[in-house]
Amino acid sequence: MSTLLNGIAASSGIAVAKAYRLVEPDLSFKETVVDHVDQEVTRFRDALSISVQELETIRDRAREELGADKAAIFEAHLLVLSDPELISPIEDSIKNDKKNAEAALKVTADMFINMFESMDNEYMKERAADIRDVTKRILAHLLNVQIPNPSMISEEVVVIAEDLTPSDTAQLNKKYVKGFTTDIGGRTSHSAIMARSLEIPAVVGTKEVTSSIQNGDLVIVDGLNGEVHINPTDEVLAQYEKLSEEYAKQKEEWAKLVNEKSISLDGHEVELVANIGTPKDLKGVVENGGEGVGLYRTEFLYMGREELPTEEEQFNSYKAVLEGLADKPVVVRTLDIGGDKELPYLNLPHEMNPFLGYRAIRLCLDQQDIFRTQLRALLRASIFGNLKIMFPMISNLDEFRQAKSILLEEKEKLQNEGIEVAEDIEVGIMVEIPSTAVMADTFAKEVDFFSIGTNDLIQYTMAADRMNENISYLYQPYNPAILRLVKMVVDAAHKEGKWAGMCGEMAGDEIAIPILLGLGLDEFSMSATSILKARSQIRGLSKSDMEQLASDVLAMTTNDEVLEAVKTKLSL
Amino acid sequence: MSTLLNGIAASSGIAVAKAYRLVEPDLSFKETVVDHVDQEVTRFRDALSISVQELETIRDRAREELGADKAAIFEAHLLVLSDPELISPIEDSIKNDKKNAEAALKVTADMFINMFESMDNEYMKERAADIRDVTKRILAHLLNVQIPNPSMISEEVVVIAEDLTPSDTAQLNKKYVKGFTTDIGGRTSHSAIMARSLEIPAVVGTKEVTSSIQNGDLVIVDGLNGEVHINPTDEVLAQYEKLSEEYAKQKEEWAKLVNEKSISLDGHEVELVANIGTPKDLKGVVENGGEGVGLYRTEFLYMGREELPTEEEQFNSYKAVLEGLADKPVVVRTLDIGGDKELPYLNLPHEMNPFLGYRAIRLCLDQQDIFRTQLRALLRASIFGNLKIMFPMISNLDEFRQAKSILLEEKEKLQNEGIEVAEDIEVGIMVEIPSTAVMADTFAKEVDFFSIGTNDLIQYTMAADRMNENISYLYQPYNPAILRLVKMVVDAAHKEGKWAGMCGEMAGDEIAIPILLGLGLDEFSMSATSILKARSQIRGLSKSDMEQLASDVLAMTTNDEVLEAVKTKLSL
Repeated sequence: MSTLLNGIAASSGIAVAKAYRLVEPDLSFKETVVDHVDQEVTRFRDALSISVQELETIRDRAREELGADKAAIFEAHLLVLSDPELISPIEDSIKNDKKNAEAALKVTADMFINMFESMDNEYMKERAADIRDVTKRILAHLLNVQIPNPSMISEEVVVIAEDLTPSDTAQLNKKYVKGFTTDIGGRTSHSAIMARSLEIPAVVGTKEVTSSIQNGDLVIVDGLNGEVHINPTDEVLAQYEKLSEEYAKQKEEWAKLVNEKSISLDGHEVELVANIGTPKDLKGVVENGGEGVGLYRTEFLYMGREELPTEEEQFNSYKAVLEGLADKPVVVRTLDIGGDKELPYLNLPHEMNPFLGYRAIRLCLDQQDIFRTQLRALLRASIFGNLKIMFPMISNLDEFRQAKSILLEEKEKLQNEGIEVAEDIEVGIMVEIPSTAVMADTFAKEVDFFSIGTNDLIQYTMAADRMNENISYLYQPYNPAILRLVKMVVDAAHKEGKWAGMCGEMAGDEIAIPILLGLGLDEFSMSATSILKARSQIRGLSKSDMEQLASDVLAMTTNDEVLEAVKTKLSL
Repeated sequence: MSTLLNGIAASSGIAVAKAYRLVEPDLSFKETVVDHVDQEVTRFRDALSISVQELETIRDRAREELGADKAAIFEAHLLVLSDPELISPIEDSIKNDKKNAEAALKVTADMFINMFESMDNEYMKERAADIRDVTKRILAHLLNVQIPNPSMISEEVVVIAEDLTPSDTAQLNKKYVKGFTTDIGGRTSHSAIMARSLEIPAVVGTKEVTSSIQNGDLVIVDGLNGEVHINPTDEVLAQYEKLSEEYAKQKEEWAKLVNEKSISLDGHEVELVANIGTPKDLKGVVENGGEGVGLYRTEFLYMGREELPTEEEQFNSYKAVLEGLADKPVVVRTLDIGGDKELPYLNLPHEMNPFLGYRAIRLCLDQQDIFRTQLRALLRASIFGNLKIMFPMISNLDEFRQAKSILLEEKEKLQNEGIEVAEDIEVGIMVEIPSTAVMADTFAKEVDFFSIGTNDLIQYTMAADRMNENISYLYQPYNPAILRLVKMVVDAAHKEGKWAGMCGEMAGDEIAIPILLGLGLDEFSMSATSILKARSQIRGLSKSDMEQLASDVLAMTTNDEVLEAVKTKLSL
């Protein structure tokens, strides 16, 4: 009999494959007194030699695929495994104290770890980490449990995890990983956003996939309906084969809209654009009929490296994106670092509430050298396309005025140096802080555009960390409070002849799109892979009907009332 | 020449006294090779015996003033100091390795600390903490630096600290501590709130008192103007003598208003009530002419103990407060725990952003046994006075409906048990989350009253942790976004015939009071010690003039514009 788990549909599509658990194994054990110490020493040596073989394979593969740099860590682990200063005391402890191998290993390793860690020396602390990793590996072999290693996957699988970190996701090979499903997370968690960007079907927030699915179980990940089927019956499999075919057909239908306008039944046209992270994402934008880029997250340029990117490196990336999209608009968000996105080399202060902390424009206005370098790179690239610059986390007009004046200063400096800069660069802001939505009328007189960042706007407006599972029910995109703030922003923009977009997850959501169309939103920015579906939906809606719907839901009192109303009205 | 530091006036009044530094001393040292090991051992033994004497004094005083319970920790420290297993290896290390006493102490102590900490045993971990504390003390004596101990203060002082934790503040003896000043913190930090409650003049957020002031320096803390003078000239001292006298006279004038109404020049009456934490605070409310309690923070009942308070304990506290105020209104806020207020015995999850986390009503609706016990205690106490119940951190109507229905269930249960419950208990909410302010019109149909919690409302609306020094400029009470939200709440309440109060710091602020009066706020809840000054201010203002002022500032764009406008209009 097949088992069904429900979760949140995080990335569309259907995947059917064997389960691969990316889960920390349970390495607990009991300390015992052993009678046959020689057998126990042999058991330890066996676990040791399997660990050595395994690490050699991993090292070799890492060297091939990731380079010698990344392989060095495994080299260090191998060194630890051949160190008699660690190995002999373990064997002595088995022989003299009659401890079982697990206990002898743990006690000896802990002693070294504590010793190294207590030294105030980075090198020795790294050695402590090496010993900890290696101990885990030997212990796993002693206990006969498996330590997962995503880079070793070599057949088609569905990945099962508690959650996936950005670095986990980066290691997933799309060739083999057909889908994934997690215990925690929501539509706006990193794993969900990455899944959509990679076009891997995903269901998150199931609460119990890791406790319900074993390695090798056959799993269906239904990223359309948020369902996970474990060891499905033939009937269920057949059903999904059909569903898969239908979805493929639907995608073919959507694909026909790639060069069509995003226009409502009654002739109201909006702009459907994409969120991107690197120039590499442009291919997806073009293939999916994006009418431009509504959010270029420049953080990736700054991540996974040892120091700040130079003006030249940045210039090349920005130029590549602008040229890649010819005259289509490209909204570049200036550095939004801090919060959950850290740059180790900036040595940012540890904060009690990083989401309410020193980040984004706050950091850029304080560390102006970083900000000015980025602005110069952007200004220099501006002549290669249709650039719009957007400041993140603006909470009051003083910040916008200060940021804009820095931009103008850099522009003047460049022009004095004889460097050409586009004259018509629009300068706008993210609206993701409640104060800015409430004050949108005053901002509208000074900015060229708004882009509503709903992921943050919702979390601040509801005072609920969107990553916190304990209060995930408070992430309420359809709460009328959010919709009212969106309306304030759109109305304020239009009153001053400016445009208003949205680059949060809500912009690509089929429940939200009808309301947003009704509220008069001008630009919808989303994962490129969501664009064609959204275009298809908008082409089937009447703007004037949606105005009525929007007005109805604004008068409602709760998130669920709104959700039900839209579902009923549009038979979703 | 006297030195002047500027900070934030956190608690009114003027203090002049010698400085007492409550600052962690620098215990760094160089490891050296000693030639005369016997001298070095003697040096170590001297430091040891001074530490023993010092600890004995502290233990005795703690036993007298705090009880045997609290003295036990120092007993444990004394035990460590007499343990040959710790002491001998230190002396051996001096003798054999020719280490200086500091290094010998540190290496040996660290070994024991690491050993104890690596054991998975609470008792051994506490021993590690004891050794760490004792090591610090001996090290301080070896290095000839002082470890501060607030409970040892026995002359009049001004306390100088980086920040004061609630437990630091609790140890301060008002008899000797005439004032304090800190490097960090703002008007809403714990230390500031405690200072006002204790009526100790305080200046916080000076950034540099700890680096500028030495023990014994003569210091003036000017809690009226936010100034700190170090070693003032005779001229400055004379000036402050005069200012002190004037302030004392002004307080006498204010004191005459203790039984007067809080009424504007043109006859508009408002209610000035107090924020309290325990029944003990009632004395201050009465002495300062409070017209009731606008916020009874029930958290203190739950803090500093090992388990939840029983229904009976709570009942007694609530009854004491209600009886103590006769028929005056008492607004009791249900448990607002979580965030920066932890209860170790609840084992709350560690959160990345506790201010956006599982706290207050979120926790109470989830752990209903805690909530129901408190509600029963409140309902039983309701017949002893004029009780109003208020739910904190309400972000959407579902939460309020659920909380209210639980309250009604408990009421019915009590009545079925034959227990009398008041029939006219008003049930309201804190408005401290932006969504709730934006939706105030829908809430107003269902709640009996609003109380705006500005400390949190400002931090969420601006997305800025009010405890985070790096972004303290974003704590903007006069930002028109905040004022607009306040207006929404007041207007919504009045439209439905309900009342709106405020229990954040803003309610007692002389810049905010005129605007709030103009916006029509009905109830102002503040530190009891601020009430008479506020009453004096309101009695000098015309409501209709303030309506014009409010309307003017609502149309402004920034916090500073509003601040300047109010200062100019009212010559503040």
